[in-house]
Amino acid sequence: MGLRLYNTLTRKVEDFKPLEEGRVGIYVCGPTVYGHAHLGHGKSYVSFDVLVRYLRYLGYTVDYVQNITDVGHLTDDADAGEDKIGKQAARERKHPMAIAEYYTRSYFEDMDALNCLRPDISPRATGHIPEQIELVQTLIEKGYAYEVNGSVYFDVSKWPSYGRLSGRNVEDMQAGARVDINEEKRHPADFALWKKAEPGHIMQWNSPWGRGYPGWHLECSAMSMKYLGRTIDIHGGGIENQFPHHECEIAQSEAANGVPFVRTWMHHNMVTVDGQKMGKSLNNFITLKQIFSTHTEHKHERLSRKYDPLAVRQLILQSHYRSPIDFSDAALSAAQSGYDKITNTVKSLRKKIEKIPGKIEETPGSEINEYVKSQLQQNREKFETAMNDDLNTSIALSIIFKIATITNEYINYPGPDKVTKSSLLEIDKFFRNLGGNVLGIIKDEYDQQVESDDIKRYELAIDGIIEWRNEARRNKNFVIADKLRGILGSVGIILEDKPDHTSWRLG
Amino acid sequence: MGLRLYNTLTRKVEDFKPLEEGRVGIYVCGPTVYGHAHLGHGKSYVSFDVLVRYLRYLGYTVDYVQNITDVGHLTDDADAGEDKIGKQAARERKHPMAIAEYYTRSYFEDMDALNCLRPDISPRATGHIPEQIELVQTLIEKGYAYEVNGSVYFDVSKWPSYGRLSGRNVEDMQAGARVDINEEKRHPADFALWKKAEPGHIMQWNSPWGRGYPGWHLECSAMSMKYLGRTIDIHGGGIENQFPHHECEIAQSEAANGVPFVRTWMHHNMVTVDGQKMGKSLNNFITLKQIFSTHTEHKHERLSRKYDPLAVRQLILQSHYRSPIDFSDAALSAAQSGYDKITNTVKSLRKKIEKIPGKIEETPGSEINEYVKSQLQQNREKFETAMNDDLNTSIALSIIFKIATITNEYINYPGPDKVTKSSLLEIDKFFRNLGGNVLGIIKDEYDQQVESDDIKRYELAIDGIIEWRNEARRNKNFVIADKLRGILGSVGIILEDKPDHTSWRLG
Repeated sequence: MGLRLYNTLTRKVEDFKPLEEGRVGIYVCGPTVYGHAHLGHGKSYVSFDVLVRYLRYLGYTVDYVQNITDVGHLTDDADAGEDKIGKQAARERKHPMAIAEYYTRSYFEDMDALNCLRPDISPRATGHIPEQIELVQTLIEKGYAYEVNGSVYFDVSKWPSYGRLSGRNVEDMQAGARVDINEEKRHPADFALWKKAEPGHIMQWNSPWGRGYPGWHLECSAMSMKYLGRTIDIHGGGIENQFPHHECEIAQSEAANGVPFVRTWMHHNMVTVDGQKMGKSLNNFITLKQIFSTHTEHKHERLSRKYDPLAVRQLILQSHYRSPIDFSDAALSAAQSGYDKITNTVKSLRKKIEKIPGKIEETPGSEINEYVKSQLQQNREKFETAMNDDLNTSIALSIIFKIATITNEYINYPGPDKVTKSSLLEIDKFFRNLGGNVLGIIKDEYDQQVESDDIKRYELAIDGIIEWRNEARRNKNFVIADKLRGILGSVGIILEDKPDHTSWRLG
Repeated sequence: MGLRLYNTLTRKVEDFKPLEEGRVGIYVCGPTVYGHAHLGHGKSYVSFDVLVRYLRYLGYTVDYVQNITDVGHLTDDADAGEDKIGKQAARERKHPMAIAEYYTRSYFEDMDALNCLRPDISPRATGHIPEQIELVQTLIEKGYAYEVNGSVYFDVSKWPSYGRLSGRNVEDMQAGARVDINEEKRHPADFALWKKAEPGHIMQWNSPWGRGYPGWHLECSAMSMKYLGRTIDIHGGGIENQFPHHECEIAQSEAANGVPFVRTWMHHNMVTVDGQKMGKSLNNFITLKQIFSTHTEHKHERLSRKYDPLAVRQLILQSHYRSPIDFSDAALSAAQSGYDKITNTVKSLRKKIEKIPGKIEETPGSEINEYVKSQLQQNREKFETAMNDDLNTSIALSIIFKIATITNEYINYPGPDKVTKSSLLEIDKFFRNLGGNVLGIIKDEYDQQVESDDIKRYELAIDGIIEWRNEARRNKNFVIADKLRGILGSVGIILEDKPDHTSWRLG
């Protein structure tokens, strides 16, 4: 059985089959870069990162496109309010592009820390103005859009399936529409493709309809089309983006191209704080930098300590991408313990491998080694079964834990059978492939960084030895004094005897 | 005396004065992202990074824009040949934008390693197609450009000062023109503003002249104008870009805007290998990654070892930005030694500061402390005088070395005067400001990372001690055995005696 994915469009778990054999095109809605990424972003991009990694594990060539929204995302979803980046720029007294640049860099820093692979292409909305204008022109030509006072709107009444993805219908939208209706729109559900720029708006371009800027939804249609073609295999995003963002994307793209836009729609669930969605606009967010930082001045009041970025990744993978995660310090703390357990096991395993010298000997067919081998085999299959079932990372993670437990027992196996290097290497391969390449929580190499605390203790131990030696020297016990000089000297610790004291250094 | 800079346009060192008081706009030609950055890029961006850093040190607000060329840079400077990125994309079988993305990331990785501050805005050529098309339209309207077969060329005959920056004249250009002349051009010196796209060309956009892409020179004019205004204070680049690139920029910008384009043109000299320019297109380059890498498989045959990125930075700063550097492993090696010397001094200084407890005491006015203070004062002035003189980083560096020598003497000063914490802090401030903030070769914090080699030696020392203790135990010399257990135990090294051997661990 191969990979099966839940498709929001059909509300079914379906067999996954890309348009072109062996090659998958994925488009994921990226961040609007006007602030540091928070835990909600973490859940989003870790979820899709695991999808990309698993597809590559299965042998697919993946073209992964994830956009950067650097213009057009307004503070109000109903095509009103300010541009989020322009607003932040005014606050920081910088050019909007400097704001976008700064937070784009910050975003990738955090995603790198979470071990998310970089998308193959990270197209920027401002970098695709001509493509967006052309798409608007096509929609006007085909009768799906209309211009009013320099702005262009999509005419939802011309697109009967509008609302299908999110399960809404246009009448409900009308009934629920706000009082402060945009008078330019023919129908309250119509959405902006191009907005006329106010005079003070810094981010604006010429268009056939005058100076303006693209509507937020437009970029995803234009850029996915440019880099992945008119029909894409998988489109990902947050469930909160099903409406209006993804509905608008579908309407724009299909009206323009006359072919299906997306074969599989995937939506991850939210991170909540006290049951409410974590979001920048809701101002209840905890940034990833606050979670990772050692600097206490950045510490968030809800955090008791800093956490390892990969422990945060593990927390995210502990629940299914379609389930929400309620943020708490306790949950992070538990994930950190679990992460430490796996990390320590892998480190011990690799230390053991290093210590067994020589080339890989043949497994002697002993009971313990056969047991380890069969466990690896069985659990690899279970892992794949779990991942094939709409990416059940929670079960996949539990399998990594199970193998960690087996590994600890195996490493310390008292005999009579011998622990073999080949079995240890098999285990390490399992960890590297499934825990590393697929789940991204096991590193290929861990820093050799030694706690400076350890060094301090060794230094103090040498100090203590030297002190004792001084005592011996004062008592004319030169046997001990010379013996100690010899032992330390043999590893390059050099003693310098002076009349009143002895100093030492690493030679 | 304030900052003076050599202006290529006037061929004089001039007083620097920005258009707007207290604020400087700088545009620097960035990389064409189709390969890893090499040492030549290092020299370029370190040079301008020091300019930016020094201007900020002097109190200016700096708007630093450095572009990313991701389309339009052809393999042949005479507007012929293939697009460099398109060519690499074909070679790697990837979308050109994926190539640009990959090498842009690589570029910033290397620049971060060299401690170059990120530009405030890093605009991409593909992200500014509308702006470039508008500029071409303006030039056609004003009679400076003409369209032929879907391409647009700048008419050099309409711009008499063409060649002024580089000291060439148009007649020479004609005489020296290649045989394979582009027949569309009215004059061989005319240059492409917009190129008609061949059918197979992936990177192309609609324009008033059909599908095509911008000429390489165009982006810098369009993007500097957008982010820094029509007249910019400083434009930087390599001397090899004076012609044709910067000549073309001047012609385009001034013809379109009718105001001076750049007040100060700054050009750095090249990195040479055996006397020839190091360049990707010349295939004699050594990438920064090869120089920094610990992976032997990446090692360049001309390198004897890996070098610290900041040692490379130091090598670059050892010569003036307008002088060439001839690459050699010996030069890198010497720079590494110098860098190590400064680094070790700063580390020792900070260790000393940590070891002196309590709050900062007053300097008691002793001779040695007064000497240190006056040296810092004098050398700060000398440093500024050197930097003010067209950024003489070579002298500035020598001053850091001088203070390092004084520091080493001071730290180990045998008395009778006391080394004071306040003087040590003064020295550290000097290093942080001038060696750190301005030159970028001294870090605010060094990794606490201990050589694992040291740890190994300490472990071996403990092993040796334990072995001797075992001997003592066998000889029933329990005084020694217990003493050693006590010494090690007191620092948390725990011994476990078993019948045949003793193991130990950090408790």
